[in-house]
Amino acid sequence: MYRFQDDYSEGAHPRILDALQRYNMIQEEGYGLDRYSQEAAQRIREMTGDPEGDVHFMPGGTQVNLVTIDASLRPHEACVAANTGHIAVHETGAIEATGHKVISVDTGDGKLSPDLIEPVLKEHHFEHMVKPRLVYISNPTELGTVYSLRELQNLHEYCQSQNLLLYADGARLGAALTVKDSDVTLKDMYSLTDAFSIGGTKNGALLGEALVIRNREIKKEFRYLIKQKGALLAKGRILGIQFSEFFGDNLYFDLARHANTLAQRLAGELRNLGCSFWIDSPTNQIFPVMPEGVVERLSEQFRFHTWVKVDEQHTAIRLVTSWATKEEDIQNFIRSYRTAAGC
Amino acid sequence: MYRFQDDYSEGAHPRILDALQRYNMIQEEGYGLDRYSQEAAQRIREMTGDPEGDVHFMPGGTQVNLVTIDASLRPHEACVAANTGHIAVHETGAIEATGHKVISVDTGDGKLSPDLIEPVLKEHHFEHMVKPRLVYISNPTELGTVYSLRELQNLHEYCQSQNLLLYADGARLGAALTVKDSDVTLKDMYSLTDAFSIGGTKNGALLGEALVIRNREIKKEFRYLIKQKGALLAKGRILGIQFSEFFGDNLYFDLARHANTLAQRLAGELRNLGCSFWIDSPTNQIFPVMPEGVVERLSEQFRFHTWVKVDEQHTAIRLVTSWATKEEDIQNFIRSYRTAAGC
Amino acid sequence: MYRFQDDYSEGAHPRILDALQRYNMIQEEGYGLDRYSQEAAQRIREMTGDPEGDVHFMPGGTQVNLVTIDASLRPHEACVAANTGHIAVHETGAIEATGHKVISVDTGDGKLSPDLIEPVLKEHHFEHMVKPRLVYISNPTELGTVYSLRELQNLHEYCQSQNLLLYADGARLGAALTVKDSDVTLKDMYSLTDAFSIGGTKNGALLGEALVIRNREIKKEFRYLIKQKGALLAKGRILGIQFSEFFGDNLYFDLARHANTLAQRLAGELRNLGCSFWIDSPTNQIFPVMPEGVVERLSEQFRFHTWVKVDEQHTAIRLVTSWATKEEDIQNFIRSYRTAAGC
Amino acid sequence: MYRFQDDYSEGAHPRILDALQRYNMIQEEGYGLDRYSQEAAQRIREMTGDPEGDVHFMPGGTQVNLVTIDASLRPHEACVAANTGHIAVHETGAIEATGHKVISVDTGDGKLSPDLIEPVLKEHHFEHMVKPRLVYISNPTELGTVYSLRELQNLHEYCQSQNLLLYADGARLGAALTVKDSDVTLKDMYSLTDAFSIGGTKNGALLGEALVIRNREIKKEFRYLIKQKGALLAKGRILGIQFSEFFGDNLYFDLARHANTLAQRLAGELRNLGCSFWIDSPTNQIFPVMPEGVVERLSEQFRFHTWVKVDEQHTAIRLVTSWATKEEDIQNFIRSYRTAAGC
Repeated sequence: MYRFQDDYSEGAHPRILDALQRYNMIQEEGYGLDRYSQEAAQRIREMTGDPEGDVHFMPGGTQVNLVTIDASLRPHEACVAANTGHIAVHETGAIEATGHKVISVDTGDGKLSPDLIEPVLKEHHFEHMVKPRLVYISNPTELGTVYSLRELQNLHEYCQSQNLLLYADGARLGAALTVKDSDVTLKDMYSLTDAFSIGGTKNGALLGEALVIRNREIKKEFRYLIKQKGALLAKGRILGIQFSEFFGDNLYFDLARHANTLAQRLAGELRNLGCSFWIDSPTNQIFPVMPEGVVERLSEQFRFHTWVKVDEQHTAIRLVTSWATKEEDIQNFIRSYRTAAGC
Repeated sequence: MYRFQDDYSEGAHPRILDALQRYNMIQEEGYGLDRYSQEAAQRIREMTGDPEGDVHFMPGGTQVNLVTIDASLRPHEACVAANTGHIAVHETGAIEATGHKVISVDTGDGKLSPDLIEPVLKEHHFEHMVKPRLVYISNPTELGTVYSLRELQNLHEYCQSQNLLLYADGARLGAALTVKDSDVTLKDMYSLTDAFSIGGTKNGALLGEALVIRNREIKKEFRYLIKQKGALLAKGRILGIQFSEFFGDNLYFDLARHANTLAQRLAGELRNLGCSFWIDSPTNQIFPVMPEGVVERLSEQFRFHTWVKVDEQHTAIRLVTSWATKEEDIQNFIRSYRTAAGC
Repeated sequence: MYRFQDDYSEGAHPRILDALQRYNMIQEEGYGLDRYSQEAAQRIREMTGDPEGDVHFMPGGTQVNLVTIDASLRPHEACVAANTGHIAVHETGAIEATGHKVISVDTGDGKLSPDLIEPVLKEHHFEHMVKPRLVYISNPTELGTVYSLRELQNLHEYCQSQNLLLYADGARLGAALTVKDSDVTLKDMYSLTDAFSIGGTKNGALLGEALVIRNREIKKEFRYLIKQKGALLAKGRILGIQFSEFFGDNLYFDLARHANTLAQRLAGELRNLGCSFWIDSPTNQIFPVMPEGVVERLSEQFRFHTWVKVDEQHTAIRLVTSWATKEEDIQNFIRSYRTAAGC
Repeated sequence: MYRFQDDYSEGAHPRILDALQRYNMIQEEGYGLDRYSQEAAQRIREMTGDPEGDVHFMPGGTQVNLVTIDASLRPHEACVAANTGHIAVHETGAIEATGHKVISVDTGDGKLSPDLIEPVLKEHHFEHMVKPRLVYISNPTELGTVYSLRELQNLHEYCQSQNLLLYADGARLGAALTVKDSDVTLKDMYSLTDAFSIGGTKNGALLGEALVIRNREIKKEFRYLIKQKGALLAKGRILGIQFSEFFGDNLYFDLARHANTLAQRLAGELRNLGCSFWIDSPTNQIFPVMPEGVVERLSEQFRFHTWVKVDEQHTAIRLVTSWATKEEDIQNFIRSYRTAAGC
């Protein structure tokens, strides 16, 4: 049964495995001090345009979030996040477990903006309440939507003016940067945030996320925090090798673009067949709305998440494509949909 | 420059990489619910002899320690550990970061025993002090020493009688179980502890540790804790595949035995050449004592840790072998030693 | 300028000060093991009807909340609270600082009920989300409303059926139990919750809150937790003496009833003068709605909190009476109101 | 049975109770913003000589320690303390509960010095270990010893040179500053530390400790941390009133000097009678060594702590005097000692 359930159902892109194989028996320093990690960091620094940026690699996204946020805040300081934000709902209280409240904000599309943050600052005005200090965004969001350059600039300026830190969770950052007509680059992500992550796991790596830090205060003794939270791999090389491969040429972006393209093709075909969408997403997660009977029949042939019941008879489902999805997988789905929907 | 610095200087054993390659494009459920993780868990359960044991896989050893300990303790409860224990010195306060004190005990050889724990319990007798509740041992210890079956039984009985939990960090467990004349098995580790780990990273895996839990209270909702601490990999399959390969036959033990054998051969030859040892270790970490000049000359050809200055003119160094060490690496070292020491 | 700002603007009721004076030079054991604390605990146990109940005294309400909640939860477990609940908004993330998320629920009147908790349980269904485990209510609520016996019974039954702990913050418990036609007693509070507090600070004590625990799991080694969080006073006697005085006769309830009576008299007179109320509260906090001009003029003579703007021209203010409020203070306010409102 | 057990066996000094009585019915702002707290802070600032110093009042000493230390450290940073230091042994892991390791150092007399701290810094040299950042001293120490001005200056200079924070727990600070030939003043405590506390509970207050902060980084938004840890009393006035009374004239020092004087008189008489001492303490805690039989007989008439067995037949006991001890209490003890010891 084919899975459109997520973008981590397979292992790694062949080039990633090849690279791991290629350097396998070369001895290297442990804990991310190996030459591959240094090379990968260097490549990322070049793309972000600042030789002073710090780059760290960690095995998973929840770790990157909790290490970075805990490194950034004093005990009474809190995060502001969309109520759909990963840290707000789907990390089992990882941030609270480091002692910090996540203030969640209702958004339509998973995106924060100054006008949504402003009331939070107004409300949290004295020492009987936590102090909002870090704005957490995900790009793309958990709903597949992306920030435009203008939106990021506005957030950046607002955060600067309010002494707020801006952190972007890029678990699927490739998808955000390679949408059609994207005007946001790695360089923008760097210059407009205090720190952001570049997800590997969901874009063809075996595992691994890069964290890029611009803010000097957050940089300080950061490896201590990585170690303390258990995110410093003894064989850090396996993260370095993968990210070095990703950014030695355009592999990282090519894989993300492939996933986006196939998702949008699938969306286009469904739209042509009369499907509406729960939300308009340009990335590799799409949310078509279908009659329940159709959903049921499709679920006998494909795995996917049902997302939300939109009315008595209709449900939005989530379909996710990845670097590993093939054109024929799309066509199979469409074929099944036509049969199920009778169109 | 050849490294005897640690047992994680290379990538993975070829069979591990092959297995990852073999199943790479098969789609699987995420977060450790894949078939490989289930198969690996099943194999480990069989070796520990209890179909009710819980097995979880996590990327790193510090994570396994902090997740397990935090899952086991109420806020005022503390760990007891040898002062050389990994959690006591080399995990950047990972346990304290979850809120729990580590009470460290001076031992000669890195091993805890009832007579060393008894005074801790006596001292911590009322609510103005933390309550010792979990005994942390590592097997082998950070000094390469191992527990005999009798010693483990004594600890187990003592802990049971004092309502203490016993947790064994097995980051190098293979080395402990395959020393010459070993009388401890995986089954013993299971039946004599409340939980213990089986390290993969230092025994030929790319990364990964298995945690095996016998105690019912610790088992409860354990996956929540794994997720909260960021130790639940989206592609849990890559841990499952490796451990399934390890325990499909005797690979795990063969690799550990190989490392032990070469270390002991190296130790034997050094001993024959007049070298004394800082501590007597039967595993893959050995601690020869050498004149400083010799250490200096060897360090131009090999990487290793200098461990401790034993007197004005002598230093103990640590030499670590691994699954990847070859007979010729040993011989090269001996040759260099003879030159350096003039013998 | 007279304060209707809160119920802790004065020191302590004279009988409280007298009692402290009376026993001042008698030597006693420290840390709450003195005879007064034991006597006070005994008196409270008698009123709650269970000789097995545990009673502890702590200096402040935030402490009682954080100690109790941290003692009750495993790391991945969370609280459910009204979004107006003290722990949710006005304790500077005290609960999160112990590692636990507070899931806040929108209520009209500050009160939780099974139908408001049910969706939270439904939503938090797997290990990627925190596990709701403790229901936090305040009685009276931060809006001055109270739970009826039936409402508490429903909550109790629901929590039991869902394996949820029920904890009641009684910072102003006296006010809840002495409202007109109250059908809830200390005995009910005890038998229907796992733990609840009896606030002293806001009812005429110098400082101090009693915590009463029925649940055996929470009771365990509880003094360790009190000490760890800094809530174990060396001179615990000063809490014991006060609560012993409170519950030696009906002082505790008399003071609360006095505050309620004056607040309701004030509310009645304002209502007669045409004032409407933002919320209907039977306790010592009332929320009259007034034209902004009137609020402004009154604020030149009295201190109180403006609560919320209800429309372009009207604001709800909060007026709080206490054990120390006198009939003439009420009449002064009414007189000023009539002048300000021109009625 | 008279208690030489501690210095908090009675209530408060009569002047303290009188002051609480005097201002009892005056309405004041809550949460430490009352006029008495401001006045007390102002008096302390004047004595420390810096109008910029921050002064906060909290109910208990463990709170002051944990709030201050948590406010001062990033997550990976640790405290260094004597192994007899209160935070190291007798606060139930309060500091670890905020996430920070306490590195304890063996001292003879409870006092830290640069040469004792130096090896800790040397050992903790990389990111696999916590980073020592704050030096915790108590003055007087838990063994009754005190720091000389020269010793404090050395510590201060050393900490400055090593980028370490210096925090002094002054739970019995009065006793330290009023020993015979003392050369340390409040002004010195202020200028030589980053923060220090002035204990009230053990010097005649009902309860309460003052925290004085010189370091700007620690000062920042400090009230948020006080509130978060539950240390912000609603009726902060009761702390302000007491400390204002303490420092309106020399009451604070007079009470401490009284306790010291009586303890030293007791020590002198015991010494004259042939008693030796476990440690030489100039403050209100003394540690005479007595034959076990004598200890036993005395314990039928007096309460005190047996401290440590010094040899087969002798035990050191701890005798504590306070503001409330009277000359006749001393004489009674001496009389009983003579009888018990037969001299």
